[in-house]
Amino acid sequence: MGSEIYLDNSATTRQYDEVTEFISDTAANKYGNPSSLHSKGIEAEKLIKNAREGIARTMDAEPSEIYFTSGGTESNNLAIIGYLEANPRKGKHIITVKTEHPSVLEVFRHLETKGFRVDYLDVDETGLIHLEQLKQLISSETALISVMLVNNETGTIQRIDDISGVRNEMNPQTVIHADAVQAYGKTVLQPAKAGIGLMSVSSHKIHGPKGIGALYVSKRIKIKPLFYGGGQEALLRSGTENVPGIAGFGLAAEIAHKKMKENYRLAASLKQLFIDELAVSGISHRVNSRSDALPHILNISFENVKSEVLLHHLEQRGIFVSTGSACSSHKNNKSHVLTAMGIPQGLVDGSVRFSFSGYNTKEQIRLTVEALKDIIPMIDISRNRKTRRKQ
Amino acid sequence: MGSEIYLDNSATTRQYDEVTEFISDTAANKYGNPSSLHSKGIEAEKLIKNAREGIARTMDAEPSEIYFTSGGTESNNLAIIGYLEANPRKGKHIITVKTEHPSVLEVFRHLETKGFRVDYLDVDETGLIHLEQLKQLISSETALISVMLVNNETGTIQRIDDISGVRNEMNPQTVIHADAVQAYGKTVLQPAKAGIGLMSVSSHKIHGPKGIGALYVSKRIKIKPLFYGGGQEALLRSGTENVPGIAGFGLAAEIAHKKMKENYRLAASLKQLFIDELAVSGISHRVNSRSDALPHILNISFENVKSEVLLHHLEQRGIFVSTGSACSSHKNNKSHVLTAMGIPQGLVDGSVRFSFSGYNTKEQIRLTVEALKDIIPMIDISRNRKTRRKQ
Repeated sequence: MGSEIYLDNSATTRQYDEVTEFISDTAANKYGNPSSLHSKGIEAEKLIKNAREGIARTMDAEPSEIYFTSGGTESNNLAIIGYLEANPRKGKHIITVKTEHPSVLEVFRHLETKGFRVDYLDVDETGLIHLEQLKQLISSETALISVMLVNNETGTIQRIDDISGVRNEMNPQTVIHADAVQAYGKTVLQPAKAGIGLMSVSSHKIHGPKGIGALYVSKRIKIKPLFYGGGQEALLRSGTENVPGIAGFGLAAEIAHKKMKENYRLAASLKQLFIDELAVSGISHRVNSRSDALPHILNISFENVKSEVLLHHLEQRGIFVSTGSACSSHKNNKSHVLTAMGIPQGLVDGSVRFSFSGYNTKEQIRLTVEALKDIIPMIDISRNRKTRRKQ
Repeated sequence: MGSEIYLDNSATTRQYDEVTEFISDTAANKYGNPSSLHSKGIEAEKLIKNAREGIARTMDAEPSEIYFTSGGTESNNLAIIGYLEANPRKGKHIITVKTEHPSVLEVFRHLETKGFRVDYLDVDETGLIHLEQLKQLISSETALISVMLVNNETGTIQRIDDISGVRNEMNPQTVIHADAVQAYGKTVLQPAKAGIGLMSVSSHKIHGPKGIGALYVSKRIKIKPLFYGGGQEALLRSGTENVPGIAGFGLAAEIAHKKMKENYRLAASLKQLFIDELAVSGISHRVNSRSDALPHILNISFENVKSEVLLHHLEQRGIFVSTGSACSSHKNNKSHVLTAMGIPQGLVDGSVRFSFSGYNTKEQIRLTVEALKDIIPMIDISRNRKTRRKQ
């Protein structure tokens, strides 16, 4: 195998070449500080304005509803902490889901120590929440519900319209924050229409630069900043703007949305091909992703395999995948998502996430399944156990 | 005048070409997520490790004492809020200086609403604090002193050794946070030796990328994060690392420190030339920067001139300068720094900051003074007033 096969696009993506060029040009030539009063400042400000308008368009929002941050984690923190700080009278009860990203779960755990009552919703064996449970938990005290639109490990898509419906019925004052980091640029998002008040997105998941993200804040909603300073981003996010990063994010968002359908179809065909090839491969496995999940993410458990061992064998062949997610920096990689779905521990230990982008091809999928056919018999625990017994 | 003369380097700088290339290469080819277990993750992690070690070396610190952030504002917020959150028993009194950057002053104002007693130190007519006043204010209740090493509008260098000395005498438990955003890469900084516990630095002030900074946290000191999530940066700063930004910052820091003496000498010669040329120009002015200020920043008040008008005339000739600072996003530009120094309002209104980098030349300074000689008589308020009276 000559070149690398990168199937870890939900962890991060290769930056688009056009984006890399645009960022370099901005950093070298349009390097002004947007707060400067002279034309180099105004030129930089214009780049930000264009990016803000472009990103607003991708989600049917107004430019003034888009705030740039340093990434998805900051957006999630700003949304949740910023909303609760600004609205102390909306109640001290908050709800999220057991399968959320650490940048939501850890915020909720922190808020437990700050006097908030927190509920973590269960999910079924495919990762969907139970609407009945949500309905029972929402009360007049519920300030916020935080829910990930597309799960980063399995691709499960929560039914946001139903969630909004339950919220409207039980307490229309409750604000919904959507972590859309994995959904953005891959599926159509219209937060206002969906009843979402706050929505986090990130640039590096859609071939944009790292270190930049955005938060959609509905104009009906007030939030407070996490930082204090020069008052950039309409007082919500102080600090000299990362102009090349913002401009690059804007361009990446534009390209991702132009190619959205094409890339969706490609991902769907790659996912199906992977599933079909595995089905006839003789490899014992379980597909953990729903058939209606976002096709860019395919989570598979291999029986009698330690996923970390499999990962290292694959990388020796130039194939890059994840065990669980890459989001919890080198901590224990026992997936809290699959565990919450009730998947048996043995299968959790053998789970691998394959995540696709427009750079992937069918040929790469075939080569990956071929590699799995080679590797898995070698690393099969049950077989090694038997072999050892025989010796 | 053919090319532009950028004298606004304290607002932000042009990225070094080597840095731009390095960032592009990293984003295009070494795009892994450092939290990924495979070799693309490890490769990215190594880039961060190198940058951390390099930046630690520039300040005689240990790599584990360097935490990457999204910039100077975040570093200042993290240092101050993070220290006070983590050390609630160290006292509810904090001290800073009236001439600090908004990313410190606004944090202190916020903390006033959170039950902290706050003192803002006065400065003399050259921007230096009064050590006696500091001595009187420090008590057993004083948790933190935050002081800018080099003022961003005037270049005034606070005597940090004296400040540490007073702290040691009055309350050795009080931690000093130094905002070193303007000092870093321009003068030797050794926080541990200087008795500094926390120190903020930024990349884009030294020809590095925007959207990245660092905080030095002495290993003796515990602080709490502003964000919660995947636990990156030893749990202190969650969020997928901005690998190209961190790598680019590391390279910019390396270059800036290699060229530090050379650039310092150049800045000193540019400052002196500017002062000398102005002295014989016949232009009425006042030099607001001390002779022992950091030479990269030269603040001058022009009599009977509105600095914003002067700025726009200069930019028409391709010369870029600041009125006050660029740090408060388009808010009223009446300098709080010069006001605190007791400079009369008329001179505050006519103040301009010229800030130099290694890209500037003596020829540019001569051209700038020539431009001032042309422009100032045209925009002189007193003269226009007289002219109007005559007509």
